[in-house]
Amino acid sequence: MAKRRIVMALGHHALGTNLPEQKAAVARTAKVIADFIQNSWQVAVVHSNAPQVGMIHTAMNEFSRQHAGYTAAPMSVCSAMSQGYVGYDLQNGIRSELIRRGIYKPVSTILTQVLVDPYDESFYSPVKKIGRIMSREEADAEEAKGNYVTEIPGQGWQRIVSAPKPVAIIEIDAIRALMDADQIVIACGGGGIPVLEQGYNLKGASAVIEKDLSSGLLAKEIDADVLMILTDVPQVSLNYGSTDETPIAHMTVAEAESYIDEDHFGLPSMLPKIEASLSFIKAGRGRKAIITKLDLALSALDGKAGTTIE
Amino acid sequence: MAKRRIVMALGHHALGTNLPEQKAAVARTAKVIADFIQNSWQVAVVHSNAPQVGMIHTAMNEFSRQHAGYTAAPMSVCSAMSQGYVGYDLQNGIRSELIRRGIYKPVSTILTQVLVDPYDESFYSPVKKIGRIMSREEADAEEAKGNYVTEIPGQGWQRIVSAPKPVAIIEIDAIRALMDADQIVIACGGGGIPVLEQGYNLKGASAVIEKDLSSGLLAKEIDADVLMILTDVPQVSLNYGSTDETPIAHMTVAEAESYIDEDHFGLPSMLPKIEASLSFIKAGRGRKAIITKLDLALSALDGKAGTTIE
Repeated sequence: MAKRRIVMALGHHALGTNLPEQKAAVARTAKVIADFIQNSWQVAVVHSNAPQVGMIHTAMNEFSRQHAGYTAAPMSVCSAMSQGYVGYDLQNGIRSELIRRGIYKPVSTILTQVLVDPYDESFYSPVKKIGRIMSREEADAEEAKGNYVTEIPGQGWQRIVSAPKPVAIIEIDAIRALMDADQIVIACGGGGIPVLEQGYNLKGASAVIEKDLSSGLLAKEIDADVLMILTDVPQVSLNYGSTDETPIAHMTVAEAESYIDEDHFGLPSMLPKIEASLSFIKAGRGRKAIITKLDLALSALDGKAGTTIE
Repeated sequence: MAKRRIVMALGHHALGTNLPEQKAAVARTAKVIADFIQNSWQVAVVHSNAPQVGMIHTAMNEFSRQHAGYTAAPMSVCSAMSQGYVGYDLQNGIRSELIRRGIYKPVSTILTQVLVDPYDESFYSPVKKIGRIMSREEADAEEAKGNYVTEIPGQGWQRIVSAPKPVAIIEIDAIRALMDADQIVIACGGGGIPVLEQGYNLKGASAVIEKDLSSGLLAKEIDADVLMILTDVPQVSLNYGSTDETPIAHMTVAEAESYIDEDHFGLPSMLPKIEASLSFIKAGRGRKAIITKLDLALSALDGKAGTTIE
């Protein structure tokens, strides 16, 4: 019997926001991932990187501004560094947890670039905040470089970058080869390093790709059976945050689409999770997507928790 | 016919010391790597990271010292980040150069940990300088944390870390799977993230592994035909830097060993290259190691340049 494949997308809560938090969070996360492997799933892991890439971007660029000989690190390079920062901990944590259980299975991180479209409409309306709060003078300097800033009321200004949709995973063949060899792969970290095609070259984009959308694309490309998006709520809800909030245990594609039309998932973090799920499910047969919390992951797989879309 | 395999180890000159230099250097380096691929070689690439990891380590740690909420990044984490910093550029540069030549072949970077021995004698005598020049007070603070420092005459103090020998490549199965799938792999960047085994866990070591030694180990582990170490001199020389300097075109293992005994390769950067070569050649049959400059790589393969050991 062919092994079943799952893409597990890890949100911030599964990783923490600084190194000590990350180490503790990864140890917990690794146990859940190991549960799936022990249950004969082939696992690809995608992780978020927002706190990490923000910290790296700020440190590298602030430092280079103050010290001769140090050069700035654009967003794409910081994204690559964050894949190292998080991937190292994750591959280590998963490896240890498996060995503790007597399972020997290789796990590694593939540095992943993800192609975005230069005409993606998000480039006209950057929304993702990165880096530290700046003065108006510093914000002017950023704008003079062609970067965008936004006012943070009462605090100052902050740089913002676009969040274009993922179009293609550049290193997909490497990821497939490792999955086909029954290995565990960490890929598309932070949604992937955003790149634009320019002739034969790929050029880093000043952007951040929503990791849930990249997870959906990865699940499609490796023909996964399940896309599992792990977040900080146990289930998707209608009327989230209101008195008549209604958790959803199960949705069909048609139901999910009509809820989207009715603007039920206005929350900026939930809509891409549903969109990623639908795009994955609709591209193949017998696929399902599950949205839940890390500690409910296994029971969600059996339909006993979380929100299943199929 | 089985394809021939080569491990190409890239030194600083093939990568530059900051981002603009790195981009220019990588474009040149990618052409040489593409030449080998076009000549039907399976290629694994190992790169140095000294300027990059130094810059990352300094930026991350200086910044975290000055800003609340930012945590320090140990050497091992900075090494992981440097694999992202350099690997991203390299995989991109190689991919572009191949597409320009009409060759489609996947290329990716595997985040690589390399095991070192906690009893490695180098831990008792750290020699690799990292980070910026410090005052005596700052050096005291480093020593209080258990770190080592060395005086840089006339300038101040600098942190030093150990350079233990590589014992095992943790992600070797992933590297092998990609090579077996006829893909190009960038691995063991900067010599690999140095880790120590502690029960089921791997713990990052405050160390830097000599990338030439890791290249030799990688070549051995993937059963390469050739180990090519690219450096800033065209050939290995006896009596280097003296008036009777004698370049060597060819050495047997026995000759190389007796030159080592006679202390001919006292230059700190050359000895590990010879040691890596010997350890690789002696572990198999029909293997050769070549030490030369980047732009002589192809002719060195035909014995028309460089130093060949076999």
